[in-house]
Amino acid sequence: IPNVGAVNFFCNYEESRGNYLVDVDNNRMLDVYTQISSIPIGYNHPALLKLMANPNHLSTLVNRPALGILPPENFPDKLTESLLSVSPSGMTRVQTMACGSCSNENAYKAMFIWYRNKERGHNMPSDEDVSTCMINKAPGCPDLSILSFNGGFHGRTMGCLATTHSKAIHKLDVPSFDWPMAPFPRLQYPLEEFTRENAQEEARCLEETEDVIVKWRQKGNPVAGIVIEPIQAEGGDNHASPDFFKGLRNIARKHGCAFHVDEVQTGGGATGKYWAHEHWGMDDPADIVSFSKKLLTGGYYHKDELQADKPYRIFNTWMGDPSKNLLLAEVLNVIRRENLLEEVTRSGKALLNGLYDLQAQYPGILSRARGQGTFCAIDICDDATRNSILLKARDKGVLLGGCGDRSIRFRPALIFKEYHVHIFLNIFNDVLAEH
Amino acid sequence: IPNVGAVNFFCNYEESRGNYLVDVDNNRMLDVYTQISSIPIGYNHPALLKLMANPNHLSTLVNRPALGILPPENFPDKLTESLLSVSPSGMTRVQTMACGSCSNENAYKAMFIWYRNKERGHNMPSDEDVSTCMINKAPGCPDLSILSFNGGFHGRTMGCLATTHSKAIHKLDVPSFDWPMAPFPRLQYPLEEFTRENAQEEARCLEETEDVIVKWRQKGNPVAGIVIEPIQAEGGDNHASPDFFKGLRNIARKHGCAFHVDEVQTGGGATGKYWAHEHWGMDDPADIVSFSKKLLTGGYYHKDELQADKPYRIFNTWMGDPSKNLLLAEVLNVIRRENLLEEVTRSGKALLNGLYDLQAQYPGILSRARGQGTFCAIDICDDATRNSILLKARDKGVLLGGCGDRSIRFRPALIFKEYHVHIFLNIFNDVLAEH
Ligand code: FES
Repeated sequence: IPNVGAVNFFCNYEESRGNYLVDVDNNRMLDVYTQISSIPIGYNHPALLKLMANPNHLSTLVNRPALGILPPENFPDKLTESLLSVSPSGMTRVQTMACGSCSNENAYKAMFIWYRNKERGHNMPSDEDVSTCMINKAPGCPDLSILSFNGGFHGRTMGCLATTHSKAIHKLDVPSFDWPMAPFPRLQYPLEEFTRENAQEEARCLEETEDVIVKWRQKGNPVAGIVIEPIQAEGGDNHASPDFFKGLRNIARKHGCAFHVDEVQTGGGATGKYWAHEHWGMDDPADIVSFSKKLLTGGYYHKDELQADKPYRIFNTWMGDPSKNLLLAEVLNVIRRENLLEEVTRSGKALLNGLYDLQAQYPGILSRARGQGTFCAIDICDDATRNSILLKARDKGVLLGGCGDRSIRFRPALIFKEYHVHIFLNIFNDVLAEH
Repeated sequence: IPNVGAVNFFCNYEESRGNYLVDVDNNRMLDVYTQISSIPIGYNHPALLKLMANPNHLSTLVNRPALGILPPENFPDKLTESLLSVSPSGMTRVQTMACGSCSNENAYKAMFIWYRNKERGHNMPSDEDVSTCMINKAPGCPDLSILSFNGGFHGRTMGCLATTHSKAIHKLDVPSFDWPMAPFPRLQYPLEEFTRENAQEEARCLEETEDVIVKWRQKGNPVAGIVIEPIQAEGGDNHASPDFFKGLRNIARKHGCAFHVDEVQTGGGATGKYWAHEHWGMDDPADIVSFSKKLLTGGYYHKDELQADKPYRIFNTWMGDPSKNLLLAEVLNVIRRENLLEEVTRSGKALLNGLYDLQAQYPGILSRARGQGTFCAIDICDDATRNSILLKARDKGVLLGGCGDRSIRFRPALIFKEYHVHIFLNIFNDVLAEH
């Protein structure tokens, strides 16, 4: 008997199609949550069904290799076709992994290795490094930290969890590291109406971030890397401006910290670009960019310097899964063929404008509509009302998800068109009218 | 460009069959390493090819659900058919995960949650617990530890890595927890010839384990759980007797620590039983048993008490992958239909006897032949000779893997028959004769 405490309901995935999820009682729901934002082009996309029905791919499905030591012959080509065809600016390398957590854990390890070699000035660990690391002690296991942000979410394995600060239930009772947390800007929306206030808030957060870096260095636990989401997702869909991220990138550079952008939830097209950080317009946005969810495989891109200096330092049995790369390559084909990023931009505008209208209409219930592409959210007056809205929407055939304390997040697939936006807005309006 | 430092060679998985791996130059090798012990029934098994070619399963391949919230309707049945049909003694619950690392990370979290609730006497965290955990501080993120063993390997994400003590290169430069390590018995082989010496060594290790538990409790970092492999794999194929594990189980009980048996490498049949711990002959062998590799999906079994008290405490986006469960169910059918566990026991005897013979013939090169089922290993006089033997064997068409400082480990698939053993032994003999 698995843990069923969190189960919403059982689904009929065979019958689900496109933007519509079908449950076990044959109820058909417009899915605006898509398996916690992990379904890129909807259910049972014909291109993916065709791909998986191709007998040429059977071997990839039944022979999962240890990619780090015995990759399939076509693996470099497959990477070039898929992940490397959408590399973030300045990054030519990618390391596949299997989920968001191992992607981030290994990205952190890559930053620690890079930082220690930088401190050493060379790649040769001392005998003391080698002997102490075997018993979890410094200098071999050094006192180094990753700086993360209040409200951030980077996963739930123990390294990731030390950088996650979204909800107590995620962290309670699990030992953690003494790693610093900086404030993520708490902006007012719509952003363009509060530019002055928001710029002030962001300046405050940047200043505190720098203070924290100095403080942790002084107490002997220097910040090797900074990890941040371009839009905080689990923590309540919190946005910040390109200027904020540029400032942060500069702070990282100034203090010799690696800069890791966690695109596990934001990556893959939902903001109207492959990577949310592209909206910052920077040539050198990051040292590491991690991904998973809509990319179907996990992994991270990195700059050359962040490549571990020896084999087996960043390693595990599977190092990803070629069957997921296969699916991803076809997903990217579909995105290109069907111009889905433009579609997302169009649908996203309609969605955000619709949310603005509803929030003007129901100011007692709704506030802080915000978003980029279809990666949108809105706040509800309180947690109880939020949950009742989620349930009523489901009864009327729309599946939504919550995030933060009292937000609803919208996470449709990339094939969510303008007419789906209008179907959704009509139903959402009905639900709100009943409140 | 991925990290290629550890790549042995590129493979042609389409052309690989059964126990034979084919490389990109069409060399056909008897595979006695099987992707770091993760291929259960050989390459391109007809039953698996047939399964994946079945159009009824296309939906499972293209729609990966968030299993924790929206499982497919047949998921409980699929678990009953597959994982729950081989539950370890005393365990009725299973939590699927995606790899060995997330299986162990979440098993550790389950032990911490259980331990803290036991300390509290109830499930209600204090306000201080809730507020401190958000900033990585005690009591919310408590000072609790997992005890592990010298030479153990439990994965490379940061929680797992704090319990891994096999090689420095795995741990170097990565911050860790102040968690205790106890000695794993260093036995003499063949076990039955050194029963007295080995019993003494095991008694010493049990005593030290108990001392370490007391010491860590006294310094305010109590041991919430003990994690151990039934046979230490990466650390050099180190065995211990059923009495040792019984003693350890009793120590865990006496000191109120959960007992976690990590069967990521040993599970799935290679020892001649589904679970290596079955050889201990205990009704209540463990509180948690984790698995991955040959099981194709990750996860852990656990006793009722180790169930987290609230939803979303043990959680992530995917919580496993139904497409891997599908494969596993068929693998288990094949194991039963073809009596593969008996086959493994038979092949394992032939393999170990063959290794005994070779070690009598080449006492200057070989020593300490050991094994259970086909999960065998032998030591080579030094690291350089080991590596040269591995290379020469490969040139003669046998793919082997190393472990520990100077061991060779044998990890064939469950379909490795007695005649494969003899093919291997002949080639191995040739390689040794040349040395
Ligand atoms: S930690 Fe990512 S798949 Fe297990």
